[in-house]
Formats: sequence, C-alpha cells, structure tokens
Amino acid sequence: MHAIGVDIGGTKIAVGVVDEAGNILAKVRRETVADDVADIDRAIADACAELTKEHEVGAIGLAAAGFVSPDRRSVLFAPNIAWREYPLAERVEALLDVDVPVVVENDANAAGWAEFRFGAAREATDMLMLTVGTGLGGAIVVDRELVRGKWGVAAEVGHMRVVPGGHYCGCGHEGCWEQYASGTALVRDARQAAIAQPERAGRLIELAGGDVAGLEGPHVTQAAQEGDDLAVELLATLGRWIGEGSASVAALLDPELIVIGGGVGAAGDLLLLPVRKAYEAQLSALGHRPVAQIELAEHGNEAGIIGAADLARR
Amino acid sequence: MHAIGVDIGGTKIAVGVVDEAGNILAKVRRETVADDVADIDRAIADACAELTKEHEVGAIGLAAAGFVSPDRRSVLFAPNIAWREYPLAERVEALLDVDVPVVVENDANAAGWAEFRFGAAREATDMLMLTVGTGLGGAIVVDRELVRGKWGVAAEVGHMRVVPGGHYCGCGHEGCWEQYASGTALVRDARQAAIAQPERAGRLIELAGGDVAGLEGPHVTQAAQEGDDLAVELLATLGRWIGEGSASVAALLDPELIVIGGGVGAAGDLLLLPVRKAYEAQLSALGHRPVAQIELAEHGNEAGIIGAADLARR
Amino acid sequence: MHAIGVDIGGTKIAVGVVDEAGNILAKVRRETVADDVADIDRAIADACAELTKEHEVGAIGLAAAGFVSPDRRSVLFAPNIAWREYPLAERVEALLDVDVPVVVENDANAAGWAEFRFGAAREATDMLMLTVGTGLGGAIVVDRELVRGKWGVAAEVGHMRVVPGGHYCGCGHEGCWEQYASGTALVRDARQAAIAQPERAGRLIELAGGDVAGLEGPHVTQAAQEGDDLAVELLATLGRWIGEGSASVAALLDPELIVIGGGVGAAGDLLLLPVRKAYEAQLSALGHRPVAQIELAEHGNEAGIIGAADLARR
Amino acid sequence: MHAIGVDIGGTKIAVGVVDEAGNILAKVRRETVADDVADIDRAIADACAELTKEHEVGAIGLAAAGFVSPDRRSVLFAPNIAWREYPLAERVEALLDVDVPVVVENDANAAGWAEFRFGAAREATDMLMLTVGTGLGGAIVVDRELVRGKWGVAAEVGHMRVVPGGHYCGCGHEGCWEQYASGTALVRDARQAAIAQPERAGRLIELAGGDVAGLEGPHVTQAAQEGDDLAVELLATLGRWIGEGSASVAALLDPELIVIGGGVGAAGDLLLLPVRKAYEAQLSALGHRPVAQIELAEHGNEAGIIGAADLARR
Repeated sequence: MHAIGVDIGGTKIAVGVVDEAGNILAKVRRETVADDVADIDRAIADACAELTKEHEVGAIGLAAAGFVSPDRRSVLFAPNIAWREYPLAERVEALLDVDVPVVVENDANAAGWAEFRFGAAREATDMLMLTVGTGLGGAIVVDRELVRGKWGVAAEVGHMRVVPGGHYCGCGHEGCWEQYASGTALVRDARQAAIAQPERAGRLIELAGGDVAGLEGPHVTQAAQEGDDLAVELLATLGRWIGEGSASVAALLDPELIVIGGGVGAAGDLLLLPVRKAYEAQLSALGHRPVAQIELAEHGNEAGIIGAADLARR
Repeated sequence: MHAIGVDIGGTKIAVGVVDEAGNILAKVRRETVADDVADIDRAIADACAELTKEHEVGAIGLAAAGFVSPDRRSVLFAPNIAWREYPLAERVEALLDVDVPVVVENDANAAGWAEFRFGAAREATDMLMLTVGTGLGGAIVVDRELVRGKWGVAAEVGHMRVVPGGHYCGCGHEGCWEQYASGTALVRDARQAAIAQPERAGRLIELAGGDVAGLEGPHVTQAAQEGDDLAVELLATLGRWIGEGSASVAALLDPELIVIGGGVGAAGDLLLLPVRKAYEAQLSALGHRPVAQIELAEHGNEAGIIGAADLARR
Repeated sequence: MHAIGVDIGGTKIAVGVVDEAGNILAKVRRETVADDVADIDRAIADACAELTKEHEVGAIGLAAAGFVSPDRRSVLFAPNIAWREYPLAERVEALLDVDVPVVVENDANAAGWAEFRFGAAREATDMLMLTVGTGLGGAIVVDRELVRGKWGVAAEVGHMRVVPGGHYCGCGHEGCWEQYASGTALVRDARQAAIAQPERAGRLIELAGGDVAGLEGPHVTQAAQEGDDLAVELLATLGRWIGEGSASVAALLDPELIVIGGGVGAAGDLLLLPVRKAYEAQLSALGHRPVAQIELAEHGNEAGIIGAADLARR
Repeated sequence: MHAIGVDIGGTKIAVGVVDEAGNILAKVRRETVADDVADIDRAIADACAELTKEHEVGAIGLAAAGFVSPDRRSVLFAPNIAWREYPLAERVEALLDVDVPVVVENDANAAGWAEFRFGAAREATDMLMLTVGTGLGGAIVVDRELVRGKWGVAAEVGHMRVVPGGHYCGCGHEGCWEQYASGTALVRDARQAAIAQPERAGRLIELAGGDVAGLEGPHVTQAAQEGDDLAVELLATLGRWIGEGSASVAALLDPELIVIGGGVGAAGDLLLLPVRKAYEAQLSALGHRPVAQIELAEHGNEAGIIGAADLARR
C-alpha cells in the first residue's frame, strides 16, 4: 500500500507518495502562511489532492514539530506554529475529497522511523535516533516499536539534563542536553572561543568574513576539514557531549544502534569518532555487554515524509 | 496458571508459589553458600521440589541480580555472585524432577513488574520503577511491555550520569545517578554532614550511638520523623536527586507513573514530597503535558518473587 | 588632608570632597557623553575645579570601571567606556589649574576600600567585599592592604569559575560566579521560574505588570518580603551561591569579614541568612577555625567617591 | 644570619642550617614516634642542639603540616599528628639550651616561601605555589608578603570547590580542587580508567605488576613518557584541572607566576603544557592582561627546611 507523507515546516510543506520500500514516488511542495493554521490545512489538502490524482494511497501521515496527542489526531502544542490542542487530522480529512485516513506524528519520531525502517537502522530492533540541528531531537525504538510515551511526548531527548546548573535552555531549565549537543551549541561555543581565544580562531573568523557574529556551523566543519586545530576541537567537544549523553540513554534503554542525523553529519568522522570514543568511555558495564554501533543517518531532508507515510500505514 | 518465583540473594533464596492475581500461596526459604553457584542451583531446585509437591505450577521464574541474556536463560555477569555467562535456567531444569520451563529475569525488572501488574502501577501503561537501596535499580515499562533492551541490560537507571565530574561510582565512572539517589548516598551524605557540621548533627550522632561511622539510613529517617532539621534536609536532598533524575528519564520516556521502592520508602512524605517537587520543577514542557504521578511501591521484599513468577508465565 | 573622590559612570560622574574620617563634605555631579573620553576628562576637571574653589584638597582619586595600570595612572581596558590604555590621570591633571596629584583606582576596589576604612569592615584586617549588582565585583584586603595583583586586575571575583560547563558569561567563559551571584542572575532565574513554574509565580508576574519580561530584582525582593514562597526561594538560591563561592575564596584568603554590597542588600536577612548558612556549610575546616562574619555594606552609592578619595591620599 | 629550618613529617624530621642565600650548610635527621607529640618536641630540640654546636643561628623555624596560630607559636590542628592547640614553639624553646627564638609555619607556606625567595619565583612579587602531592597544598605571596589570613589558615587552595556535587573530599565537602588536582586524583583516575577501559590500560596495568590496585603515579608518568595514549591523557586531565583552577585563583589574585611543586613535576612538559593551555583558555580578560608564567618548583624535598628557616629570620 502506498501512503502520503507530509513534512510541515514553518513556511512550507513537502509532500510525497511513499511506497512500501520507503521510496518516494512523487513529491510536491507548497508555501504556507506561518501563523495561519487554516492556511496550512488547505495547503496540505491541496497537495494531497494533486498527488492522489495520479497515485492510489491508503493513508496520509503528517509530520508536525510539536506535541502530538496519543490518538495521533491532534497537535497539543507546537513551539513555532500556532497549534494549541488543534485537531489537525480531522481538519485535513474534512478538506480532502478522497476518503483516506490521516494521522499525525511528531516530526522527529517520523524521521527516526524512516531511519529505522529504511535507513541506517533497518537491521536493528532497538534504536536511538538523535537529530542534531537547531535543537536536539530524537526518536526511540524499543523492540521494533516506536516509543511515544503515555501522553505522546516521549523522546524529547534534548531536555534530558546533563549539567546541573548548566546553560540556560529556552524551555526554562538549566543544563539540557541540547544546550551542549546541537548545532546551536556548536556555533555558540565557536563564537565564545573566538572571543576568549582570538589568536587560535583566525581561520574561523576569516571564514566568517571577519565577523565573529557571522560564524556558523558550516564554517567550523570546513575549517576542521582543513585541519584547523580549534575547529577540530570544537567538533570533538560536540561529539563528546553527544556520546556521553548517549551513554546515559543507553543505561536506560540498551539500544543496538544510535543514529546521528542533522546538518552536523557533514563533518563525518570528525564528529563521529569523538562520539564513539566518548560513548564507549562512558558506557556502563563495558566489557559485560556489546557496544552499540553509532552511525550517520542515511535519509536527509526526506526522512520526515518517508517516516510519516510509513507510520500512517501501520 | 500458578507459577513459582525465586528471589536469589547472596546467601539465601526465597521461593514462592504465585497465583494469577499476584498472591503468594506458599513460600519457603533456603540458605546458600555465596560463592558456590552449584549450591545455589541445588537450593533452588530443592525449594521448587518442595513446593511442587503441593502446588501445580506452569512456570518457574528466577530473579537474579545481574545481567541476563536476551533469551532469559543465562546470567551473563553478576556483581555479587560468581555467575559469568552461567546457564542458570538449564542447570536448574536439569535438577528438577518435574518438567516445568524455567526463565531468568533481572531482579529489579522482576520487582518492577510486580508493581506494574499487581501493585502501585496496576492501572498504568507506562511506568518507571526506581528501587532506592544500596544502589539505584530500576525497571521500565513502555506500553505495557517490560523494556529489556537489545542485550538484556536496559533499565540500569543508576548509571545514568547526572553530574559530570561527580562522585566516583563502583562502575568506574563519575557522577552516576545512584551516587546521589540511593540509600548509600543518604548515609554517606549524613556522615559527611556530621563531619562538616557536627553542631547540627547532634541527634543523628546520638542515634548512631555516638559514632559517626555507625550512622545508617534508618537513623536519618527516625530523626527526620522527630523533626530534626538536618535529617529532614538530608532526605529532601535525596528526594531532590530522585525527582530531578526522574525528570530526565521522563524527557525520554514520558511515563504515566513513577514508583519508588526500597528501604527509604519508610520515610514516606518526607521523601516523597521533595521527589514530587523536584520532578515537577525540572519536568520539560510542564503545562503542555500531564505530570506523572509518583508513588511508593506496594510490595516490599516479596516483589521479586511475584514479578519473577508472573514474567515466567508470559 | 582632604581629598576628592570621583565616581565615573557611563553617562554621569559624581564628585565629592572627603575628609580623613570618610565624610563627604561637598558633592557635585556632571552629565557626560558616554563614548567621548575627552568629554569625561573635561567633566571631571570641571567638577574638581568647582570643588577646589571652596575646599583645599591634597589628592584626587578617580574610580573607574575597568582595568587600571599598576602605577594607578591609566585605564588599560574598560567594558563600557571607550578607554583603551588611556592615560586618564595625566589627561585630567593637564586640565586642572591646581597642582594636585591624580590617581586612578578600579571602582570596585574603591568601594571596597570605603567599607574597609569607614564602613562595615572598619575593625577588620582581612576583608572580602562583594558588590552584587549587574555583575559581581569585588575587593580584597589582606593584612590591611588592598590587593591589586601584579598587573592591577586582582579581585575580579565574578570570574572565578563555580560550575564547569555552567552558564555562559559575557567574558567568553562558562560558569563564572557572577552568572550565579548577581542581580542579573536573580532576574534571569526569576524569569525562568516564571516560565517553568507559572503557577508558583503568580505574585511575581503580577508585580511585573503581568509581563514576565518586565520582572526585575526589586519585584523579587518585594514579593519575598510579603512572604511569597518562590521569591523567598529565589533569594535563598542567590544567597547560597554567594555563600558557597565565598567559602571557596575563604579557602584561599581566610578573611575575617565578608561585606555584601549592591542593590540586593535591600533584601536584608532574606538574602543574608542563606549566605551565612551556605558559607558555613561549605567552609573548609569548620570547627578548627573561626567563621568570618558576613555583613551588609554600610555605604551605598557614595562608596566609590569615599574609597577613591582615601586611596588617593595614601 | 643563619637560621635552622625543621621539616616535621609523620615519623621523621629533617633539620638544616640555612644561610641567607637559601643554601643548606648542614643537615641532620631524626626518627620520631608518630603519635607522641612530646617525642617530636625532643627530637626537634635534640637535632637543633647537634647543629648549634657547629653553627651559630639566630632563629629556628618549624614547618608543620597543620593550622598554625596567627602568632606563629602554636599548631591549632593537624590532620596527621596529634597536635590540638599545641604550643609547639614554647615546648621546643623549653628543651633548647640555647636562647634562640622559635616560630612555627605551615609546611606548604614554608615550601612556597623557599620558591619565592630562592627558587622558581625569586624574581616575582606575586606568586601562587601549588604543591601537587597526596593532596593539593599551596602558598600565596601578594606584593612580596606571604598571605597567612586572619586566623593563619589562608592558602588552603586544595579546598576551593571546583565541581558542585563533585567528588567527596576527606574534609567533609564535595568537589574540592584537590580531588581533581593531586597525585591521589591521578592515581584514582588511572585505576578507574583501568576498570572502565581495560583494553586501553594495558601498559599501565603491566607497569603496576598486573594489578590495578598497585597502579601508582610514577607508573602513569613512565607510561606517558613512553608515549602511552591513556597515560598522556591522564596527565593532561590532571594538568587541565590544575590550570583551570589556577585561572580561578588568578581572577582573585592576579599572580605573576604560578609554581607547580610535588612529585608530579617529574612528568615535566607532559603535565606543564596542559596546565598552561588550560590556564590560558580559562583566564578571564585574556588579551587585556599579561598571562602569568607557570613553572615547576626548583627545590624538592628541602623546600620546607629552607622556607621555614628564612621565615623564622623575618
């Protein structure tokens, strides 16, 4: 059975028809008005209508950045779109002229599910997926099932506390993992290093056009790939936090595979080797248990579409 | 179907027949020689033989303090008994004269399962159980299933890191949760407080017979129940660590209920209220999600027997 | 001998004639253009000229918020005024029509010296002064002498690290004491608490006019004085960090008296008692040494004038 | 004027005649009974008598591992010898048949003073000395004067807190600097690493004779000098903690020179380079201030004798 997956961003949506092997057979995009939830509903329905003309689909999955109700019908809260206890599935169904069931999934869960079913974790039964981007998102698979939690808000991995009294987080707490293990943390550390140790930051500042405030993640990756000492160190620090936090998750869940997604994956082994080293160094009961593999995600931006479609089919 | 549950301690084993409602119908005990694994096998078989004379049972579950293989047949490693990749189920089956299948379960998982099926969490679908004793053990239930992990070593909650550079743990790492949230931590903090602030520790030292080294957990509980300021503070600190760590687990798993077991439960609300306060204060997305209940365990020492028996039946 | 003390702020200067007992005999103010260092020179000279018409003075001391050269003639660097290796004493002397020596002192050192000579520490020989304001400034007196350090930048107490991996500081480092023990930290924690625990923050939000972003230190103090639980807790947390950091300083310097200055002093015992409790609880070798007293500063905004004048005389 | 310096250890004392240039002209040793303070008095007097037969001395300085009264006459408390408010100077004077004044100094202060007057810091005016041994001792010189503090217990640098909730310290507190920056910490970390990462610890375990419990500091130094990756990392971690803590001290005291003494100095640049790197990386206001030099101590075991003698003369 084919299914449609919809990845809903702040100002645009990407919609695709996905077959049972996880291939995207057709794909369309729509622009949306960020704060107009009815406009988003219409854009989704319109895109689905276009695709269902050519493709027969049995389900539609919507990947939304927010808290999703346990019945997979509503978005309870979203940080960047004005959904508050919003019956998204029902609204979209009402606008469709075909009778296809719609379900809503958290976007990080959808992306993680795509890796689990058709990507880096396709051979695994127990997976932790980390999406290292602006924040730190995640998905957890235990014994082949996605963990949604009692109220649908499991796998908010970025808010596990890793440093008491640590960096402030937008969530109102201190020391959240995503303050240490995200692209945002990488950039912030890079800028701070450029202030505190300007003599070591020459290449980074140069890549940023001479302005510390313009320093971004890809500059760090590029400098590191050129062998810049400070940039390598910054990626190693990011990797260390990813790995150490993952070891804490492993104490709880004993995963077989940890998948690292998000833009920082572009750094490749400059990130992955420090992640693995830190994970192993912190893993409890090392020597009495196998060590989980840690790999980069295989699906990039399309993971949300693929995962949402596949979850909708289940 | 009735089943037998066996709780294997260092020098004694407790064995009971458990019905489908979680009641113990009969119970026997055996002394064992701690380092003699064959002696433990024989004691288990002997106790089971005694019980099966009077009771028909369909399964036998062994609760072992150690890492259990994913097929539930062997103990891979145990800290306090000389099991190393030991085929415990097979050895016990060979000594039995009845043909009843034997399975092995981690003891904290067994105790947690007893609470989930027949105790404080009987109404819940997603549970975190914390056993606050010498160390900090745990059990995790997700969507009504016990989480064992890929290699059977999930729910080693005590080794989640909560303080980078924190207290040394016997596991070789620093800052493990059980170094802050266990009876051992309570006693250690109490003794340290008695050194650093002797003038505040008068009642505690008195209860310990005048000797700081003799200070134990029940002294702290008693003093706190009498209103002793330092003792109340020590329990509140223990409770804070339990609650804050639980909020990190909740970021991953979104449980409905957190059950606190172990001897410190005797402190009642003096422990439980600080746990709840800290949990709520640290919980991510408070206000956009329900807050898990936190309750004391209902089964005491018999939880291992009950849980092992019930898991064996499944 | 009388002396003039000058307290140089970002947009205004306060100038006073100070007698040998620390009394201000006359005082004038001038507005300045913040980024115009020559304008500041002229304003200082002009104010001094006005005062020297009526008063005979033997020295002029300038209290500057910045790093001061060891010869007390130049400001090497200032965060808020455009002084960079600026020969402030020489420039002011050149504009004066009287022949009076001018010296420059760090403003926190000047304020601390006023407390040491004429304020809360007048009986002491070894003092730590903490000025808890936007940041955390300080002054150190050892055996009756102000500690300036080899290069004039001692007593930058706010940048002692208290939490590895802790809050970012404007200085480019993490975990600086002033990120936990300053008015800024108090306000930040109050706003974060209002986000994370809105139901406890009712009175605070009300005092802030309904807007969390409008919440300021005096609202916390007022609510605490009314008995508001969260506000009391926020001041206690601030006090704890002040006290615990002071215990670290005491391990190095063994002071007799710790003086707390800055606007948070308005909270009185709501701040001071938690400071003392935390100091004592963290003090090394308690029981084998006396415990330093901890008191509020006696001079408010005039401490800079008084201290600068007195230091200029020495 | 020549003076005698006495270095009092737990079971032996070393006594020397020291000239004004810091040279030891003659030296004797005595065994003592550890817990017999009167025996220590007699041994000191006896050794001094032997030396004063041949040498004219004007003062005797006793270096004692303990808290010394501000009048430099008594030991208030010692962790390893049974001195409790013990009038050590008076007791020794009473046993001498020559009329020479006796003063008592803290042993770390004496060793630091030797470096300041005749060793690595002889050109400096502001010094921090760190003695990295079983614990972390220190001495502070501000503007050419030894800082003793109000009650004689300044420079207990090892008990500055560097990690809230960190390792327990024998003093009853958590996170004391000496738990991270001492030979004891190095050995402990080495043993923990050998448990947690046995496959990386092969050479260390070999040097320890195959037994992790036998692993000592010199094994780490030797392995590091051979290029062993883990050993180099362990020394770098030790160095990082020394350097980062020193940056906190520098925020308070702005020293010109930091002197590293104690057995770990044998590691040379393997220790010193990480110390310097971490110091610079953590130093507040880097770029607006000179950076203190960090050097190894020049006097080894004789620093106590030399410093005590020189302080006695002052």
